[in-house]
Order: sequence, then structure tokens, then C-alpha cells
Amino acid sequence: MSDIDMIRAAAARLKGHARRTPLLSSPFLDRIAGRRVWVKPECLQHTGSFKYRGGYAAVSALEDTARARGVLAYSSGNHAQGVALAAAQHGVPAVIIMPADAPALKIANTRALGAEVVLYDRAAGESREELGEALRGERGMALIRPYDEPQVIAGQGTTGLEIAEDAAAMGIARAEVLVCCGGGGLTAGIALALEAQAPGLRARPCEPEEFDDTARSLASGEIQRNARLSGGLCDAIITPQPGEITFPILQRLCGPGLVVSDEEALRAMALAWGRLKLVAEPGGAVALAAALFHAGRVEGDDVIVTISGGNVDADIFQRALSQYGDLH
Amino acid sequence: MSDIDMIRAAAARLKGHARRTPLLSSPFLDRIAGRRVWVKPECLQHTGSFKYRGGYAAVSALEDTARARGVLAYSSGNHAQGVALAAAQHGVPAVIIMPADAPALKIANTRALGAEVVLYDRAAGESREELGEALRGERGMALIRPYDEPQVIAGQGTTGLEIAEDAAAMGIARAEVLVCCGGGGLTAGIALALEAQAPGLRARPCEPEEFDDTARSLASGEIQRNARLSGGLCDAIITPQPGEITFPILQRLCGPGLVVSDEEALRAMALAWGRLKLVAEPGGAVALAAALFHAGRVEGDDVIVTISGGNVDADIFQRALSQYGDLH
Repeated sequence: MSDIDMIRAAAARLKGHARRTPLLSSPFLDRIAGRRVWVKPECLQHTGSFKYRGGYAAVSALEDTARARGVLAYSSGNHAQGVALAAAQHGVPAVIIMPADAPALKIANTRALGAEVVLYDRAAGESREELGEALRGERGMALIRPYDEPQVIAGQGTTGLEIAEDAAAMGIARAEVLVCCGGGGLTAGIALALEAQAPGLRARPCEPEEFDDTARSLASGEIQRNARLSGGLCDAIITPQPGEITFPILQRLCGPGLVVSDEEALRAMALAWGRLKLVAEPGGAVALAAALFHAGRVEGDDVIVTISGGNVDADIFQRALSQYGDLH
Repeated sequence: MSDIDMIRAAAARLKGHARRTPLLSSPFLDRIAGRRVWVKPECLQHTGSFKYRGGYAAVSALEDTARARGVLAYSSGNHAQGVALAAAQHGVPAVIIMPADAPALKIANTRALGAEVVLYDRAAGESREELGEALRGERGMALIRPYDEPQVIAGQGTTGLEIAEDAAAMGIARAEVLVCCGGGGLTAGIALALEAQAPGLRARPCEPEEFDDTARSLASGEIQRNARLSGGLCDAIITPQPGEITFPILQRLCGPGLVVSDEEALRAMALAWGRLKLVAEPGGAVALAAALFHAGRVEGDDVIVTISGGNVDADIFQRALSQYGDLH
């Protein structure tokens, strides 16, 4: 199981590989939220999302002989790129199973990073888990699950170590940390890191409407599924249900989930563009959207939010700017 | 005159105020340029451009009694915001003279940062220098020139100290440093910092076509003016001619100027968006455009480029994405 020692070990392996992202802010965002907003821009991470942390942590944790046979992953795109780059950096092959309706840029980037991409149709009910198991059997590759995987959670948790360190340096002892949440790997990792390093900071998962499985699961105390498995803008964080490993961690350590609309995610993307000069993808903007547009559901003088990724196709980004890009 | 001691003193005053920006990279950009490309993202600086460094350096260098009477600046927008925020942080008033055709977002932001904005018509030949002198006489405020001002050059030079430090840490002993150049404050400051701290690194000014006064001045050995004083997309770096203080520094320390088209600047903006998740404005993207699309005019295995600012209106950004945002 993931714990703080595993996160610290992952941080040691990631040193010199993962980017140490800062906490950014803007007085214009503070005014909207009514409190100070600190943004952890994981869109600036290698491959454009935090997923590189978990991918590298998992690939680097494999034993040499296992790693040499290559790695296998399924992903809507960000985990794909993170694992692909980590595999390339270790000189081993990668096969990535991606939904055919993933953003074209994510599929193209994954291939450009040297991985073999296998597409499946998620709307038709094809199971990426079954495809993954089959390929694992055929090729003997190590499967790196996107979130229900202790080394992946540990890698994502390094984000939380950095948040704890920067918050302490700025004198922030108490704050909520809003995290973009799909399967819960980033949220669980951050929550574990904060528990050990910054107990006054509490993680809260943020999700898009209609895909709020984690919020409903936390509220009911039992794992809930989403009615749909695709659709909406926030492809990066759409998963069937919370993970079996991640959910108990979230249940023990996180505050209630926050839910935002796709339109709020687009508005947050436009504000990240104009006020922070950062490119966020819709799923990567839900935590910022929660901080800005659901401020009444958040507590404290400071709020910390992740922008978990920036891998968005141009047409969606232009939609955010044409609707919400006029900031004056 | 500006020198390395003044730059080091500015760095000490800026500590804890200016953001320490990193050097970012992407394998996709390296492939286009045919060498490693390192990006200094000053769009992530406070107020969205490096100008905050010079503004803060100049305001903090004033004697208390002079500073208390407030500060005055003329600017197409980025210097305006940098001085406005620095003045607000020092608790003193700021009056900013801006062209009426500056990007609306820059004018709005300058006002929102607490400054009084006075607009003038640059196409009609109104002189911002004369307006500035008149207001200075009336109100007794200290004029902070955008580039021909030793403390401003020193503040911009702190960017060069950071580049020198990061290049040394990465083992880069020789490289060209491409700098977005208007009046030459950033270029001169970086050149002075590199001369002292990283003599194997050489600054080269980058400009847009039709506003290549610095490139022509360096080539001819005498200060040349631009035929036009406005127009084109790169508003941030359009100045009548190189500065009287900055030009001799450039002449002594810089390599030949590089010139890019507005379309190349837009392509570079789209690549910064897609590959680095950064928002660049056209004038802030000319150095990246030079590295990517004029690689034959650059030497070495590594090239370092500034993205000097990201304050761009949504319509221009959408134009960059609609024309060049399809990266796959």
C-alpha cells in the first residue's frame, strides 16, 4: 500500500527528472474567489500533466528484468504520455491502450514519444482493463494502472510534498487543497503527503457534473459509479468509479467533493490563460473552477488548487476564449 | 550607468518579490529547431511580463521622499503594469501614459492594479516623451523610463543572472541567448549579466519585420529608426529606435539581430501553447520564433530563448490557434 515512505522514495527517484513546479497566484483571481488562491501548475510538468510523476515513479520502481520486457498502460491520454516518456527515458518499449475518442493531440503525442498506441471504443463498451490484461498475457509486459497502483499513487504524491513545502515557506498552516479528481491517484497521493507533512492542509476532490462518482461515493460512504463512461469536456478525469486502492485513502483523509459544470471549467481555463498565462485542459481546470465559482463551499483565507494538465485540442481552447476570454 | 553590481543589487531588492522563473523545454521544440531549446518563461512573471523586474527595481531604488510623490511611466502596456504593481506594493501613486491602441487587456489591467491611465494617440504623432515630461513637471513625480533608465536595465538584468545560474547547473557553457527586443532594456540587462556570470553565453536581440531598428542599427553601427511607430502584432516591442543607454551595451556585447515575421510569431505562440502550456503574446514570442524558424542563423547545440510576456487579447490568441494550433 502507498504510504509516506513510498512517496518520499518516489520523490528521490524523480529528483532531476520531474519538474519542481511552483505555486502561482494573481490578485485578479484572489478578487474573484474572495481569498488568496495558490495554483500548482502541473500543466508545466513534462508531457503537460502530473501523470509523468506517477509514470516515472512506477517505471523506475520495476526490477530491471521486468522493466526490460516493456510496460503497458491504458489511459485517456495524460497517463499515456507520462508512461510513454518514462519508458523512453528508461530505454524500454511501451504499449498504450487509448480510447478512440481521446483528444487527437494526446494520441499523436503518445505516439511521438515512442509508444505503440492501441485504440478502443469506450462508447461501445469495450473494456480497457480486459484489453490490458490480454496484452499483458501476450507480451509479458508490466501493466502500469493509471491510479489503482501503489507506485503511481506515490509518484503523484510528490506533488503533495511540494505543496506542503511551499505552503510552510509562505506561512500557510491551514488551507484546503482542491484537486482535480478522476480515479483518485493524484488526490490520494496528495492527501497522504499532506497527512504526514502538513496536517493543517486538507485535500478535496473536484469533479465535473455527471461524472461526480467520487463526491457521491464520499457522501454515501460507498463506491458509486457514473451513469456514463464518456462525454463532456473533461476527458482527463472521467473514470467509471473511484479506485479500490484510492477510495479508502480519500475516505479517511479528504473533505467533501466539489462539483463544477463544463462551462465553469471553460471559464476557469480562460482565467488561467489571462491571469496566470497557463494553458489548462478542461479536466485540469475543475479545481480552479471550484475555488473561483464555488467559493462558498470552501473554507479559510487561502486555497490551494491543482491545474493537473494542459493537453487540450485547439478547438476546445478557442471555445473557452471566445466565450470567456474577454477579461476586461 | 548599469553594471553587474547594479544588477546584483537589484536582484537583492527583488528577492521575495519577483518570481524566479525556470528554464523549460520540450522534445517537440527541440526537433523543430534541430538543437535543444531552453525557454525562460517571463510570461509567468508577476503582471505577465519581465517588466515587473525593472519596474520594481526602479521604484525600490528611489529615495523615500521622492518615491512618496509617486511615479510616472509611459508604456504600450507591459512596463505600465510592472510599474503600477511595483508602485502599489510600495504604497505610492502611479500615473501611466499609454497609447490609445494598446491591447485593451493591458489598459484594463493597469487600471485594475491601481494606476491612473492617461491615453495618447501614437498614430497621430503625439509624443509620449513630451507628455511624460509635462506631467512630471506638473506633479513632481519620478519618471521611470521603459528602457533608457539604469535601474530598469538592472532589474531586467536579473533575468540574465538566473539564466546564467541555470545554464551552469545544466552544464551549458556555450549558447546563444535570444531575447525579445524593443528598446533594448531586457537585452542590455541580460547581456551585462551574461558578460559577468556566463561569458560563453551571448545575447542576440530578436525583432519583428518592419520594426527591426536594433538589427539594422547593429549591422550599420549607427542608431536607425523604424519607418512606422505602430502597426503589426508585436505591440510590446515596437519602439522608435534603440535606446541611447541600451544601444552601446548591445553594440559591445550582442551578436547580430534576428528578425521574424508576424506569422512566425503566431506559429511560435501556438507551439508555446501546445508544447510548453504557456501563453505568449506576439512580441513575447519573437525569440522563440527565431530559434524555431531561423535555426540556420543560430549556432551551438543549445539555444536559450526568452518568452518576455503573455499579455495578449483573446482575439489575437485565437487567431494563432485557428491558424497554427493543429499540432498533430
